[in-house]
Amino acid sequence: MSLTALTAGLAAWSTDPDELARVSVDRSGAVPDGVPDLVVFAKNVEDVRRTVAHAARHGVPVVPRGAGSGVAGGALAGAGSIVLDLSGLDRIVELLPDEAIAVVEPGVITADLDAAATAHGLRYAPDPASAAFSTIGGNIATNAGGLRCVKYGVTRDAVLAVDAVLGDGTLVRTGRRTIKGVTGYDLTGLLVGSEGTLGVIVGATVRLSPLPTSTATAAAFFATARDAVAAVTAVQRRGLRPSTAELLDQATLVAIDQARGTDLHTRGEVFLLVQTDGYGAEAEMAEVDRVVRPLATAFETTTDPEVADRLVATRRAALPAIERHGRVLIEDIAVPRSRLAESITEIGAIADRTGVRIFVFAHAGDGNLHPIVAADSAPPEQVDRAVAAIFEHALAVGGTLTGEHGVGVLKRPWLAAELGEPLLDLHRRVKAVFDPAGVLNPGKAVR
Amino acid sequence: MSLTALTAGLAAWSTDPDELARVSVDRSGAVPDGVPDLVVFAKNVEDVRRTVAHAARHGVPVVPRGAGSGVAGGALAGAGSIVLDLSGLDRIVELLPDEAIAVVEPGVITADLDAAATAHGLRYAPDPASAAFSTIGGNIATNAGGLRCVKYGVTRDAVLAVDAVLGDGTLVRTGRRTIKGVTGYDLTGLLVGSEGTLGVIVGATVRLSPLPTSTATAAAFFATARDAVAAVTAVQRRGLRPSTAELLDQATLVAIDQARGTDLHTRGEVFLLVQTDGYGAEAEMAEVDRVVRPLATAFETTTDPEVADRLVATRRAALPAIERHGRVLIEDIAVPRSRLAESITEIGAIADRTGVRIFVFAHAGDGNLHPIVAADSAPPEQVDRAVAAIFEHALAVGGTLTGEHGVGVLKRPWLAAELGEPLLDLHRRVKAVFDPAGVLNPGKAVR
Repeated sequence: MSLTALTAGLAAWSTDPDELARVSVDRSGAVPDGVPDLVVFAKNVEDVRRTVAHAARHGVPVVPRGAGSGVAGGALAGAGSIVLDLSGLDRIVELLPDEAIAVVEPGVITADLDAAATAHGLRYAPDPASAAFSTIGGNIATNAGGLRCVKYGVTRDAVLAVDAVLGDGTLVRTGRRTIKGVTGYDLTGLLVGSEGTLGVIVGATVRLSPLPTSTATAAAFFATARDAVAAVTAVQRRGLRPSTAELLDQATLVAIDQARGTDLHTRGEVFLLVQTDGYGAEAEMAEVDRVVRPLATAFETTTDPEVADRLVATRRAALPAIERHGRVLIEDIAVPRSRLAESITEIGAIADRTGVRIFVFAHAGDGNLHPIVAADSAPPEQVDRAVAAIFEHALAVGGTLTGEHGVGVLKRPWLAAELGEPLLDLHRRVKAVFDPAGVLNPGKAVR
Repeated sequence: MSLTALTAGLAAWSTDPDELARVSVDRSGAVPDGVPDLVVFAKNVEDVRRTVAHAARHGVPVVPRGAGSGVAGGALAGAGSIVLDLSGLDRIVELLPDEAIAVVEPGVITADLDAAATAHGLRYAPDPASAAFSTIGGNIATNAGGLRCVKYGVTRDAVLAVDAVLGDGTLVRTGRRTIKGVTGYDLTGLLVGSEGTLGVIVGATVRLSPLPTSTATAAAFFATARDAVAAVTAVQRRGLRPSTAELLDQATLVAIDQARGTDLHTRGEVFLLVQTDGYGAEAEMAEVDRVVRPLATAFETTTDPEVADRLVATRRAALPAIERHGRVLIEDIAVPRSRLAESITEIGAIADRTGVRIFVFAHAGDGNLHPIVAADSAPPEQVDRAVAAIFEHALAVGGTLTGEHGVGVLKRPWLAAELGEPLLDLHRRVKAVFDPAGVLNPGKAVR
């Protein structure tokens, strides 16, 4: 491949080995099979089209990249590949308060969009734990979730339209600016969550939603995960619609306490953070209180924003606190809500059986668990056994391998077990339509 | 084609001319180019697979059909086609209150599912005006909306998984039972809204949501559509989240009054129905009051369920009331919310210019307008001009041809104007993956 033919037309690129090493990995901890040949720092859509078209002509893999904050290896770039870094496309192009939409480039940091919306009494609802450093483009690639999505939906629910460069370098604009619309197929929703394998997202029109008028927050501790999950189920069966329902297990609480000097782990085995919001936030929280308190060992509510922010920050600190203890595998299974307690128990049993240390926190309202596997806490084959057992459990109870992080490279071996060969084959044929040369992030998401 | 080879294996089918004529049309008023050869009354998934596989072998069009309540001609069945009637697949297979999901066959009447959910304190959120007689399968085919979807989302937001028979007769199961999940592409969302052109929906897993604890309702009248839309915009800019925001114009009010013996049209030019719900329903409605009353000529609120039900019934009566006056074309454009008043004014100007009578009601919170064109109120060429002008206007302001009814056959001529040829070509290639023989509802949705 002649890189010169490509780079001659580009403003910014690098073949510096250190730079290439940096952009070849993400937060998954996975290791690529060598270093890429080139990293292109896209400055405009034309750079993206040119890069993809060149790659298609020469049959070279292109790995789109935002902030590199993915945890499933979706941005892993191996030998012979071109990394397409989109972090420089970071403009909020339009923000229309009356429409409650924004038009953004893919490299916009999620929290920056949210902050820009806040200035108009709006917000960008999806709030992955990585919001402070992940990009909208990356969020779109993985259909990122977050703490609020139990009430306000995931990334796909917020994306109205995308501009995407397909595998032959053509640019398409899917979707529309209106809230509703059924002209044509939902190619926007198809591109969301496709992990860069169907098109490179170079722009998006997203919905914004009103900032809630008020928020009430509860911190509850329980003797067992079963009690905590029973509380979540009771809340939902009572018709309450919490905007957040986050569960942290004892190991996670200990890690947070060590990192932040708090004493959460002394107050109960399992912690549950519940928020309600909107006009009825306090009335709804009073009902949460009635339902949850009888099941809890400790329960307190607050409407003080500072106290609430501290509690939410505690939850967001979970992963960084765990990561201080060494290399981790960040799992992301989702199970039917009624099986959540069973899943937590089973993960505990897996940890006991394999000798692997596993921390668990969960978006409990969605049945989305993050078992965080301490990679160096046991021999590698035991770690592999533990991870395999977690996936087997998820599928056995009718769940899924990944709720919001994507398949990347790490979950590929399990893909066929969840989807089945006929459906996986349909995926491959869909990919071939969008990427005939098979150069868009090959080996990720589908295989 | 030997029909015998097919019908020999089926429990129920007909070639009776009256029956064929009945199943060849829907509520669009469009007329097919002849009668189909056969109608299959599917009793199970195997009937569907057998019918589609037969059709693929012989290159015969298959037209899936639910209640025949579509208004865009999506179920129109012409000469030489096979109608696949799915209304007999009408079981609610499972309803799991703790999961808040239901598994249904496609022929279940939407209101029946909602009623079954209500028994458990839940509901099926999408509520098309046709809910009393349309089927879930038809709702999925068009990605149906409704009155509540401004707050609770459209059909696509409620569908977690589908069973679909592809164009070669194979059965696939997309999606999952969990609320979240990103394993594989969103083929579920792709099938929703595809109007039977990618697969025949033979089953679906849908989300249910809690019944709101309370609902508050406001009836407001305004001197002009501009004032009514200003009220909706003010409500949304204030951060309020109405569960319903329905606008009816003067012509629609007159038609309703004539049908129901009410006197709405004497109380203002334009009517707006606003509902809030949940724990803060009354507090939120008090804020709606503060924002809307200054703009209205009359404003009243109620928390009396009977009064509220009557107001909602009034809105649902709009289309039947208009249809009493003769044949109508039911349009369904959606525009950016801030352009809604402009759209209503422009439709009035189009009516004046062409001499065609046009009624307008709208899901105002979504910018989704239903201009109802009285088909016999002017010469056909003037009616055509009026419809064309409505579509041109929608596209000119960045809107779409159809918000929730689908493209069917009636909006096909305008498809390329909205999507553009390159994107339309991508649609065709996607269709070819799902339906290589091109037998699934050909000539609908895409072309």
